[in-house]
Amino acid sequence: MNYRMIAFILSRVLLIMAALLLLPLITALVYGENILPFAVTIAATAACGGVLTLFRPRTREIYAREGYSAVGLSWLVMSLLGALPFVLSGDIPRYVDAFFETVSGFTTTGASILNDIESLSRSGLFWRSFTHWIGGMGVLVFLMAVMPLGGERSMHIMRAEVPGPTVGKLVPRARETARILYRIYTAFTVAETVLLMCGGMSFYEALLHAFATAGTGGFSTRNASIAAFDSAYIEGVIASFLVLFGMNFNLFYLILIGRVREALRSEELHRYFEIILASILLIVIGTVRRYGLGQSLRHGFFITMTTLSTAGFCTQDYMLWPAYLQTMIVVLMFIGGCAGSTGGGLKLSRVMLFIRTAAADVGRVVNPRRVNRVQMDGRRVTPETTGAVYAYVALVMLILLGCTMLVSFDGFDFSTNFTAALSCISNVGPGLGKIGPSGNFSIFSTFSKLVMAVTMLFGRLEIYAMLILFIPSTWKRR
Amino acid sequence: MNYRMIAFILSRVLLIMAALLLLPLITALVYGENILPFAVTIAATAACGGVLTLFRPRTREIYAREGYSAVGLSWLVMSLLGALPFVLSGDIPRYVDAFFETVSGFTTTGASILNDIESLSRSGLFWRSFTHWIGGMGVLVFLMAVMPLGGERSMHIMRAEVPGPTVGKLVPRARETARILYRIYTAFTVAETVLLMCGGMSFYEALLHAFATAGTGGFSTRNASIAAFDSAYIEGVIASFLVLFGMNFNLFYLILIGRVREALRSEELHRYFEIILASILLIVIGTVRRYGLGQSLRHGFFITMTTLSTAGFCTQDYMLWPAYLQTMIVVLMFIGGCAGSTGGGLKLSRVMLFIRTAAADVGRVVNPRRVNRVQMDGRRVTPETTGAVYAYVALVMLILLGCTMLVSFDGFDFSTNFTAALSCISNVGPGLGKIGPSGNFSIFSTFSKLVMAVTMLFGRLEIYAMLILFIPSTWKRR
Repeated sequence: MNYRMIAFILSRVLLIMAALLLLPLITALVYGENILPFAVTIAATAACGGVLTLFRPRTREIYAREGYSAVGLSWLVMSLLGALPFVLSGDIPRYVDAFFETVSGFTTTGASILNDIESLSRSGLFWRSFTHWIGGMGVLVFLMAVMPLGGERSMHIMRAEVPGPTVGKLVPRARETARILYRIYTAFTVAETVLLMCGGMSFYEALLHAFATAGTGGFSTRNASIAAFDSAYIEGVIASFLVLFGMNFNLFYLILIGRVREALRSEELHRYFEIILASILLIVIGTVRRYGLGQSLRHGFFITMTTLSTAGFCTQDYMLWPAYLQTMIVVLMFIGGCAGSTGGGLKLSRVMLFIRTAAADVGRVVNPRRVNRVQMDGRRVTPETTGAVYAYVALVMLILLGCTMLVSFDGFDFSTNFTAALSCISNVGPGLGKIGPSGNFSIFSTFSKLVMAVTMLFGRLEIYAMLILFIPSTWKRR
Repeated sequence: MNYRMIAFILSRVLLIMAALLLLPLITALVYGENILPFAVTIAATAACGGVLTLFRPRTREIYAREGYSAVGLSWLVMSLLGALPFVLSGDIPRYVDAFFETVSGFTTTGASILNDIESLSRSGLFWRSFTHWIGGMGVLVFLMAVMPLGGERSMHIMRAEVPGPTVGKLVPRARETARILYRIYTAFTVAETVLLMCGGMSFYEALLHAFATAGTGGFSTRNASIAAFDSAYIEGVIASFLVLFGMNFNLFYLILIGRVREALRSEELHRYFEIILASILLIVIGTVRRYGLGQSLRHGFFITMTTLSTAGFCTQDYMLWPAYLQTMIVVLMFIGGCAGSTGGGLKLSRVMLFIRTAAADVGRVVNPRRVNRVQMDGRRVTPETTGAVYAYVALVMLILLGCTMLVSFDGFDFSTNFTAALSCISNVGPGLGKIGPSGNFSIFSTFSKLVMAVTMLFGRLEIYAMLILFIPSTWKRR
């Protein structure tokens, strides 16, 4: 294990985080709020980062093990330090709560323990939403975009932080890929901010909601979430951008360089739009009597996108809808966004591979002599990839059951516990029952909050980057 | 496809079923009840079987495809015909309800749509419990035990009907294996009947409860299930036999021929007892204040065994217990009995292989150069087997979600829908919420009942034997 290289990466992550914390500090200055919470956190973060720079790596060689460990550790340390401003400002007095909220932010889950969001300081709210934006595309991808890191091998870092069963380099150099991703991400965020301001939002609120949309996080500045604005335009803008942020960013790059036809041929994209349309249709059928056609279309589009993209903004309390729509919402929570998007869940292409591999396996039982090849976008998928997909789904199920079990010690009903665990592993936010759109996570015990925080990190980092930290052999010297 | 051979097997299954139906007919004679329902069903079943004997197979060659199709079709036809006596006698007037109850019987699920079990005729109750016994070990295994069938290739039939990831022949000849299995099965059933009679049960009730225990089904003769007897002795006897019927029958054979040490070395067996002890301990911890130590041990043992073996008898309403015990019950419902037992669920050895394979796959991500071999009982497990285990778990999850979705159109809460689907795919019986120990399945619509009946068949036949019937290419001539 190249410990020095991990320390080096960690130091760079912390220095970048200290720099990013300047934004909420400026917000505090602008609104005349106390800047001390951020100043202290910046000092602490920069100090930690500075100390770690003392360990100069002898070699910049990193392998999968170093890549995954560095990512896992970085996210853990970022969450631990990122919780400080909330505690220091008194916005969230208990550290465990602040830690839960910060993890929920970075992992773009958007599950909140706050009963009164509007009572937070404006700089606190800014930081809370900004964590979504940082976590959405990933801080290590950001790091790679701004400084050279590990050379050719830095793809291991990208693979550990970017969601999906496979990570394709857009361009030969990982650094250039990271830059392109962040450029698209920023451009969309700016566009959404402008469009939201056109709908009457202030710059502050428009920016914060754009952060939350970009990361498919779901934190809002209002207690009633998006329902507070009661505007079909704003819901339409957010849902439309969720369609974009739930798509594979590689496709935008292909479109940018003029290979539009190739981008539009993506099978995952086709299934993505089919699922969106089917889900809207089901919601319209189930709620048209309650709302009328126009309103049921509006709510159908918004709830579909907020669930499938795993943002988890709220407008309508779907706990009041027919039960089959609640089951559908659970299915959407499982699926999540496309690979290479900022969305959570299993990722659509993984679900597709999963179903295709299972179908091929079934075919093999039925007819052992026929060779069933799993294909995706016209290319054959290797057994290594399909095996990894199976393993991933298996691990998600195990963590889901384990988290449900541990959380259920608090004594709530099975729906609440199961969907809370699913919401955390899929990075959605709300669930059913007591954590439906009208509830929140403040009801849980400290123990459950910690379990769920870890589950969120498992979900966002797609298990391995977190799991590796718990495996003793990772830390053995050789 | 060797259609004639499938017709041949089906004809033999129907003739055997007609013979087995003589037992409830005799029961009707003994208790002076109407014998017409059984006489008519026997005539119809024998006639169907007789017509099918006209198709003489040109060759007795069967492959996996024929084996699985024959098993799937047999179970479907048996259930369709087996429902007739209930309708003809007026015990269950609606055919769909009778079909649900019969499928629930044959698949050893034990989910009931009856609100008043005690109002049934004695011959009807006999047939209801007897379906558990027939379905527990499998009617085609029975067929193989009594007549030569397909020669060497008949292992395909056994593989399709006997639960578990791998089916080992006990002895070189499949027929002899089937006979040994049925001999052990019958001996245990007789022993349990005698022991239950010692506890004060009548011969009739003792036999019917032994049937239900042997198949790990869960139908009782009383509305209050086992709670009606209010006897620690009877609960102890049933729970102890559930321990046996939840074990791999191969182990009993090994013990019979004196290879005790080999039998006791089974890793699955060790995990089985560890899970039982851990589960009892958790229940005692959670309910000792409610019941006191002695009673909480009694209920802990009974509820653990009735859930893990997937029998689903009821004594205590665990919906009143702490929530974490309900989650634990859901976990036990997923696991189920050992491979080669009459229990349902995923089967313990499959869960073990699943976890070990996932662990090996994780290890490969952490350290790509290390070769991680999956082992079981000291032997290396082939990638084909681990792949099949992954595929099986994947398919169960898909069916579970699909069934939950379809059932949720009835408008009940998520807990009820999810655990109803889980109860059906795992062949347990009760679940949580409205189908907990104090509820039953009569609340569901006709559509949901049919969906759940199919789900139960998928669960009992471990998916492939049912799935193959729905795949068009199965029916293509070549």
